Amino acid sequence: MEEIVQTPIWLDLLAVFVGAISGALLAVVRGFDVAGVFALAIVTGIGGGMIRDVLLNQLPASLDNPWYLGTALAGAAAVFFFAGTFQRMGAVMLITDAVVLGLYGIVGAEKAIANGLELLPAILLGMITTIGGGTLRDVLTGRPPEIFQEGELYAVAALAGVVSFVALDHLGVALTLSVIIGSAITFGLRVGAWRRGWRAP
Amino acid sequence: MEEIVQTPIWLDLLAVFVGAISGALLAVVRGFDVAGVFALAIVTGIGGGMIRDVLLNQLPASLDNPWYLGTALAGAAAVFFFAGTFQRMGAVMLITDAVVLGLYGIVGAEKAIANGLELLPAILLGMITTIGGGTLRDVLTGRPPEIFQEGELYAVAALAGVVSFVALDHLGVALTLSVIIGSAITFGLRVGAWRRGWRAP
Amino acid sequence: MEEIVQTPIWLDLLAVFVGAISGALLAVVRGFDVAGVFALAIVTGIGGGMIRDVLLNQLPASLDNPWYLGTALAGAAAVFFFAGTFQRMGAVMLITDAVVLGLYGIVGAEKAIANGLELLPAILLGMITTIGGGTLRDVLTGRPPEIFQEGELYAVAALAGVVSFVALDHLGVALTLSVIIGSAITFGLRVGAWRRGWRAP
Repeated sequence: MEEIVQTPIWLDLLAVFVGAISGALLAVVRGFDVAGVFALAIVTGIGGGMIRDVLLNQLPASLDNPWYLGTALAGAAAVFFFAGTFQRMGAVMLITDAVVLGLYGIVGAEKAIANGLELLPAILLGMITTIGGGTLRDVLTGRPPEIFQEGELYAVAALAGVVSFVALDHLGVALTLSVIIGSAITFGLRVGAWRRGWRAP
Repeated sequence: MEEIVQTPIWLDLLAVFVGAISGALLAVVRGFDVAGVFALAIVTGIGGGMIRDVLLNQLPASLDNPWYLGTALAGAAAVFFFAGTFQRMGAVMLITDAVVLGLYGIVGAEKAIANGLELLPAILLGMITTIGGGTLRDVLTGRPPEIFQEGELYAVAALAGVVSFVALDHLGVALTLSVIIGSAITFGLRVGAWRRGWRAP
Repeated sequence: MEEIVQTPIWLDLLAVFVGAISGALLAVVRGFDVAGVFALAIVTGIGGGMIRDVLLNQLPASLDNPWYLGTALAGAAAVFFFAGTFQRMGAVMLITDAVVLGLYGIVGAEKAIANGLELLPAILLGMITTIGGGTLRDVLTGRPPEIFQEGELYAVAALAGVVSFVALDHLGVALTLSVIIGSAITFGLRVGAWRRGWRAP
């Protein structure tokens, strides 16, 4: 591997923002008070990256750099004041989420590779990065985690993208191309599951 | 900041003891066997500080120093033999818990600041320290976490105290005064919610 | 202590394999899709050791060495194709699990001692190692954790074995003998609970 992806901070923050909105929306639907809305936004937004960094034995980026928490709080505040708008934007949210799902998993796997992990562990860490926050959100609110909901192609789509990226990168394909192909695969599977009803076996 | 709070060990241990009793009492109410009572006491007593230390990329104090576990076991044993007494002391327990809720959050935030974290992450870490153990307890027993129960002013009270402490400390107010004001705010909100029915929006 | 147990890799991998099968079987019973089966196998197989290593402030062995994940995937694949066979082998699985429950707890405690922890924290870490994966599995699927299910003698059996090992080791008994006695105690209690209906108070 000749290049290393410097995790672009804007991608991390976009993932945090999208995650925070998803967590805050669920909190609003459940009728949580203001503390619950902000707590669930933070957990969903920064939880996945935090678990990744803890597993890599590093201080979590979200504790090192206050922009992460600021972004999660901004997402929570947006939902607190404009919950209705976000709920009407269901399709936009789903598409943004499908983009972030793939990209964030790839960033997680790349960070693992850059820290010297081999391919299988890197794939696992990418998956934990991209689905960890949502899983924490579901566990804390007593929902069955999204990764176990049959037919959503959620985990499968993320996994297909991360595996493709790691394989292409390992085979020497240019980094940008590997990122684009990997996240396009995740995006395609997610949107296909939504529009066409694709299912996993 | 001129001074650093050496986390006073007695405060850590008091928080462990109060947490352990709260966990053990829940286990007794649920009809868990002796292993369940001790397990839930340990989780509730040392869970929050353990998560804090893991996030700070340190060996948890509760693994480094056997007094933490000894205190949690003492709390569990006290409940195992005198559960009825503790249940009749509901008001005493609530007041002790309100004191510890504020102090432990402040200690967590202070430890974060002493480790070089900025204000927002320090506040988050203080919150995780003080509500982490109870949240783990609730997740393990399948209860909706206390932080999401509307109207208890639990998270809100803890947050108000931690934020006040961090702000006063940052503005240069003497450390002891900052600690006293911060924990008084948490204490007042919790007791007000209990006696007067104060609610969050 | 004169000797140090080099955690034998085959024991770690056996524990991962047994855990992965247990997680995958539960996923099949629950009707999860293929992603759910593999996810639950991985969580159950490597979760306990991963938590142990994170608490010891180390890169988890399961991220450092790809054999761990490979073994978990093999366990998941075995269940995915031969679920019926494993379900008919209930007694074999229970006996294997009783062996691993004791040995894995002892390995965890020994790793803690080798890292300089004192006896009580080492016992806790042994327990977390051996029941952590199953507890994560239960939390993620919304089941009450096995450790809290009265009458299974699950946590009690593990604890008796780990405590016996740590005590014997501390008293200078030969390492191999300590391991054999400790895991025999766990095994005996588990099988006794199953065949004779032994119960904890």
